[in-house]
Amino acid sequence: MQIGFIGLGIMGKPMAMNLITAGFTLTVFNRTATKCSPLVEAGAVAVSSPREVAERSDVIVIVVSDTTDVEAVLFGDEGISAGLKPGQIVIDMSSISPAETERFATRLRDKRVEMLDAPVTGGEKGAIEGTLAIMVGGNPETFTSCLPIFEAMGKTIVYAGQSGSGQKTKLVNQILCAQHIVAMADGLRFAREAGLEPETTLKVVSGGAAGSWMLSNLAPRILENDFAPGFRIRLQHKDLRLVCEALKDMRGSYPATELAYRLFTEAVENGLGDQGTQGFINLFKDKDNN
Amino acid sequence: MQIGFIGLGIMGKPMAMNLITAGFTLTVFNRTATKCSPLVEAGAVAVSSPREVAERSDVIVIVVSDTTDVEAVLFGDEGISAGLKPGQIVIDMSSISPAETERFATRLRDKRVEMLDAPVTGGEKGAIEGTLAIMVGGNPETFTSCLPIFEAMGKTIVYAGQSGSGQKTKLVNQILCAQHIVAMADGLRFAREAGLEPETTLKVVSGGAAGSWMLSNLAPRILENDFAPGFRIRLQHKDLRLVCEALKDMRGSYPATELAYRLFTEAVENGLGDQGTQGFINLFKDKDNN
Repeated sequence: MQIGFIGLGIMGKPMAMNLITAGFTLTVFNRTATKCSPLVEAGAVAVSSPREVAERSDVIVIVVSDTTDVEAVLFGDEGISAGLKPGQIVIDMSSISPAETERFATRLRDKRVEMLDAPVTGGEKGAIEGTLAIMVGGNPETFTSCLPIFEAMGKTIVYAGQSGSGQKTKLVNQILCAQHIVAMADGLRFAREAGLEPETTLKVVSGGAAGSWMLSNLAPRILENDFAPGFRIRLQHKDLRLVCEALKDMRGSYPATELAYRLFTEAVENGLGDQGTQGFINLFKDKDNN
Repeated sequence: MQIGFIGLGIMGKPMAMNLITAGFTLTVFNRTATKCSPLVEAGAVAVSSPREVAERSDVIVIVVSDTTDVEAVLFGDEGISAGLKPGQIVIDMSSISPAETERFATRLRDKRVEMLDAPVTGGEKGAIEGTLAIMVGGNPETFTSCLPIFEAMGKTIVYAGQSGSGQKTKLVNQILCAQHIVAMADGLRFAREAGLEPETTLKVVSGGAAGSWMLSNLAPRILENDFAPGFRIRLQHKDLRLVCEALKDMRGSYPATELAYRLFTEAVENGLGDQGTQGFINLFKDKDNN
């Protein structure tokens, strides 16, 4: 099976590499062409447009940053849709708007091309180790036919429902992640301000009902002043933007999620966008001292 | 060693029972005297005031609900302090104000009595199984001398620092718990409103970076409409009140913690106080439908 792969960033590159390792033949494209080199060395063919990727592939995987990037790859000048043939499959593994995802899928279905939305969690580490969680929306038969592809990149692979459901599931994930990051910052700052020893406090609270993945994995990095990105603040902020866009069409009241979005917006505005999400705590550095 | 035990509620009763099992001799008091019966059957002596408990004990353990309850037990009419002798130890395992805790400890130190603050987490289940986490503030030598008592009731026993530090550590725990409960409610409600299958969503998000103890342990109960209390909303609300009282003396900005307090206040006002904390999601039942 010929696989096309578009977007060789922090996540895309190791995901594409795992497809090659699993025995798939890859045609790759990246806006910054030099990023194709390691894949070409591993056996992939690099081409100079999404259209050419589509012309050479049965299934085209997209891993880019935001809704407008996916739209450009699909329908822009020299985009995939210029080279698509009926029966091909597009798998969008970016994290983008569920509503736009549904529209993109409808437009492609007019060309008799099925699109799956398949965003991931697990970060760069999960991408490298092939242990990502992948949440998939779209046609269930198309999902089944793509399972070997997903299994080369991830460990927990879940069919979430019709088109857009993968993206919606990812937003649930990000609602939780964002609030857990905010909670972690409040807890650690309270401990520090109250004169507690942060390591001792962390030890006793993280093992019980107050425990979270964030607390176990990122709080120790905060205590070491390590704010290097696993997952960047500006991407967490982007995902919260997608959440709040989706909330406009919903009836419910989500004040804590909206507060998290405002706080992450402040964090980006304060220049923290390229720190890892654990760097969110630095938003309060000046505030706490005033 | 003669142990006195005051407060035989959901937590106190099994904790006292574990002390008897570990071989300690107990004198017990409870405001509602009938609650003493199971302890008396197990070998404890029941008396009719905190003062009498103090007269018969080397170490007096207190497990009641709130700051004013502890104050009444210590310094009220027929309170402990009327029966205290120099060299005795008071261990307050209630969750109360850190600032008041320090004042109580100072007043007792004037009588040459050391007081440890030693609030717990782990719920009724942890109390019964003797697996509580116990965070202890006060004199370090007093802490060491009381370790056998703590070890009869808990598993993770941490010395947190000077008087009040146990209570402060508990507040950090509750800041995290409360926000994780709010996040869980937002995540599950978003999933439901977006038309996702809650079980599938929960499965994929709870295993990764979005995971929390709350999500693993309480979200399944929400999906089963089981709102029976492990830990009651009104106690989580009380702990958030203690947090917000403590914040008045701090410089930092804690908007998400304050929001959680407002939301839990609403939950209590809406009659949810005696549901388990997973019942917090029911606060939004009417809101989401309007």
